[in-house]
Amino acid sequence: MSIITLTTDYGLKDHFVGALKGKILSEYREATIIDISHGIGAFNAAEASYILGAAYNSFPKGTIHLIGVDAERNKENQHLAVQWNDHYFICADNGILGMLMQKIVPQKMVAVNIHDRLHEDATDLDVFVTVACHIARGGLLNVIGKEIETIKQVTELQPNVLAGKSGIKGYVVYIDHLGNVVTNISKKMFLEVAKGRPYEIVINQKTKQRVDRSTIKTIWPRYSDVVPDKFSIKEYEGQKLAIFNEAGFLEIAIFRPNPAYGSASSLLGLQYRDPVTINFLTE
Amino acid sequence: MSIITLTTDYGLKDHFVGALKGKILSEYREATIIDISHGIGAFNAAEASYILGAAYNSFPKGTIHLIGVDAERNKENQHLAVQWNDHYFICADNGILGMLMQKIVPQKMVAVNIHDRLHEDATDLDVFVTVACHIARGGLLNVIGKEIETIKQVTELQPNVLAGKSGIKGYVVYIDHLGNVVTNISKKMFLEVAKGRPYEIVINQKTKQRVDRSTIKTIWPRYSDVVPDKFSIKEYEGQKLAIFNEAGFLEIAIFRPNPAYGSASSLLGLQYRDPVTINFLTE
Amino acid sequence: MSIITLTTDYGLKDHFVGALKGKILSEYREATIIDISHGIGAFNAAEASYILGAAYNSFPKGTIHLIGVDAERNKENQHLAVQWNDHYFICADNGILGMLMQKIVPQKMVAVNIHDRLHEDATDLDVFVTVACHIARGGLLNVIGKEIETIKQVTELQPNVLAGKSGIKGYVVYIDHLGNVVTNISKKMFLEVAKGRPYEIVINQKTKQRVDRSTIKTIWPRYSDVVPDKFSIKEYEGQKLAIFNEAGFLEIAIFRPNPAYGSASSLLGLQYRDPVTINFLTE
Repeated sequence: MSIITLTTDYGLKDHFVGALKGKILSEYREATIIDISHGIGAFNAAEASYILGAAYNSFPKGTIHLIGVDAERNKENQHLAVQWNDHYFICADNGILGMLMQKIVPQKMVAVNIHDRLHEDATDLDVFVTVACHIARGGLLNVIGKEIETIKQVTELQPNVLAGKSGIKGYVVYIDHLGNVVTNISKKMFLEVAKGRPYEIVINQKTKQRVDRSTIKTIWPRYSDVVPDKFSIKEYEGQKLAIFNEAGFLEIAIFRPNPAYGSASSLLGLQYRDPVTINFLTE
Repeated sequence: MSIITLTTDYGLKDHFVGALKGKILSEYREATIIDISHGIGAFNAAEASYILGAAYNSFPKGTIHLIGVDAERNKENQHLAVQWNDHYFICADNGILGMLMQKIVPQKMVAVNIHDRLHEDATDLDVFVTVACHIARGGLLNVIGKEIETIKQVTELQPNVLAGKSGIKGYVVYIDHLGNVVTNISKKMFLEVAKGRPYEIVINQKTKQRVDRSTIKTIWPRYSDVVPDKFSIKEYEGQKLAIFNEAGFLEIAIFRPNPAYGSASSLLGLQYRDPVTINFLTE
Repeated sequence: MSIITLTTDYGLKDHFVGALKGKILSEYREATIIDISHGIGAFNAAEASYILGAAYNSFPKGTIHLIGVDAERNKENQHLAVQWNDHYFICADNGILGMLMQKIVPQKMVAVNIHDRLHEDATDLDVFVTVACHIARGGLLNVIGKEIETIKQVTELQPNVLAGKSGIKGYVVYIDHLGNVVTNISKKMFLEVAKGRPYEIVINQKTKQRVDRSTIKTIWPRYSDVVPDKFSIKEYEGQKLAIFNEAGFLEIAIFRPNPAYGSASSLLGLQYRDPVTINFLTE
């Protein structure tokens, strides 16, 4: 009765996702298969890690997350099965799990070693399906892999606290389908460093020929909070704002964006990996 | 064993849809979750209402329809749970249900009032999930909300009968993925007003510099009916036609459109909210 | 407990796919419904046939495949229900099944004849749903159709062996979401004709003003095999290569393509129906 989630860069046009589900059902007919996303950018480990981190925790403990992004086993990337935060993750060792699992120690990690036991034409996905169904049936990780202590770490793009705790510098890690810009500054980190001090968020707003310094003074709990009491929702459409999104990260957004007019990403010129800084102010 | 359908403007790239399903399964493991669409235009209530109206009735009675479009509760929109036509709908009071439920009186409507009972960081979607799972377990609407008599009505864009029942003027409410143009003139309305009279459909066909009056003389039961007996299907590809679609509305279509050549919307210059008129002819 | 798969050209924005699933669940609540693809090009029989052929075999025997591509019954196309390779297929007789089932004789084929037994407004999809649920409940094909011996064959685009077994000429049948180019030359055909001889794959690489002859000398078992031992994966990104894909067909690919740089289709100028030839070399 286990849940198996799928996160891939396969897109939805080709047969890959359907075939993957067919293989899972062929081996474990009782599986509940749930798509997290098949729209991850091709081979984009950072995007896969963000999407997975934002979604996995909404599933029941014991859920098995199969990640079909850059999944080919090769001389640089082995196949992993990991128990972490009471969830299971099956992925190539390509940085996705390294980025996801920062700061929380995994319960168990194995390098999958069943490749020789499968039929000759078995694909990387056949391996993942076999591992997923083994776990779904209550099987132990040690049966399908060799315990390991470390996996690949990706160290770029970490948010950091500025000298004297004067601020936090983070980076854009994801741009969502509305063009809202998600940074890697977590609410938790913000609260720990801010300790109630006033702040301003600084964005280097890139327009055609130049870069303007743009600031936001408030991080709202919810989008609509940007609208003051005496104004209507409609009057604030298109307003720039900041919130901590439901995944727990600082997000720069446009309130009810009109695609014809522009999104946070297009209007502020913010792209993947661009810096966003929170400066704490002395009162 | 209830079915819960999802209609949102979240797109399929982000984690939102996956996380929503995870939350539902965490709370009600037996749910059958079915996607209606996650491609509704951002904050587009008219589109959500059309899609929902065209799909809901294909599901068994008792199905719960969760609508994640403009779902944020704010000072203008409360959260609704409504029983209508033996189906359940969970939505913000943003006009979507008002448009959907015209002419048929709901069985019960409540303004959801459980927000204070949930954890502090609960999102709008957490509220919807809690309500959906409550209904799925057979819970009563009164337990999760306060009964209300009215919801927001959206009055624009209604089709109307012309003076002396000489015709019906309707509007484009939806353009489907083939570029076919759906109006809000229903087969039911047409039959009641036409009473067997001959008719012509008038379209103001907009081309580069000017607007031409274009007419269609027949509303076919099925697309292929546009092909006369002695012609082949292939010879009629690209032909303009009208049908009542399976949702019961007048649709202006191109027969087997070739994307390279154009669709009903692009060829006839018909956009959302453009008028389409049926004139009844005196014999 | 049957699995019903869906392959359509309906896209994911409209209500069609959701309504179809609702109808299936209304009639057969226990169905496990799996999407193969809803991104088939409109009325594109060749694409539907390739996708279906690449996916169906990953499902358990007895799975029912419903194909909503060019599904309208008209004077040229009747509705089919076919048992083939221990799977069931429900489709209009529009060439899709003819292309799919080449070389392997179907176990049973019927022309569906239940149209008069359904309600007056029944759509083509209502017919397909009724047939699918009948089969899912263990019903016989003869009950819902009249046995037939032949269906429409599409004869274009077949790969063929060149004179004196000097080579194989095939055609591009599909371009996947990464722009990789799939031909209709199967691994099976290659092995039978090659008999271990060396070979080169010849592509007429179309650039702006001219056509260059481009060759590939090796068909690898897996993408990463293109990287020689002493090089890193990264150094070979963008490399042109050939493999037999998991569907068993010759595929011309770019190793870890960067969308900004180009795909196999765009870089080599290969489009649907373009020829790709394997020449066998005398040693």
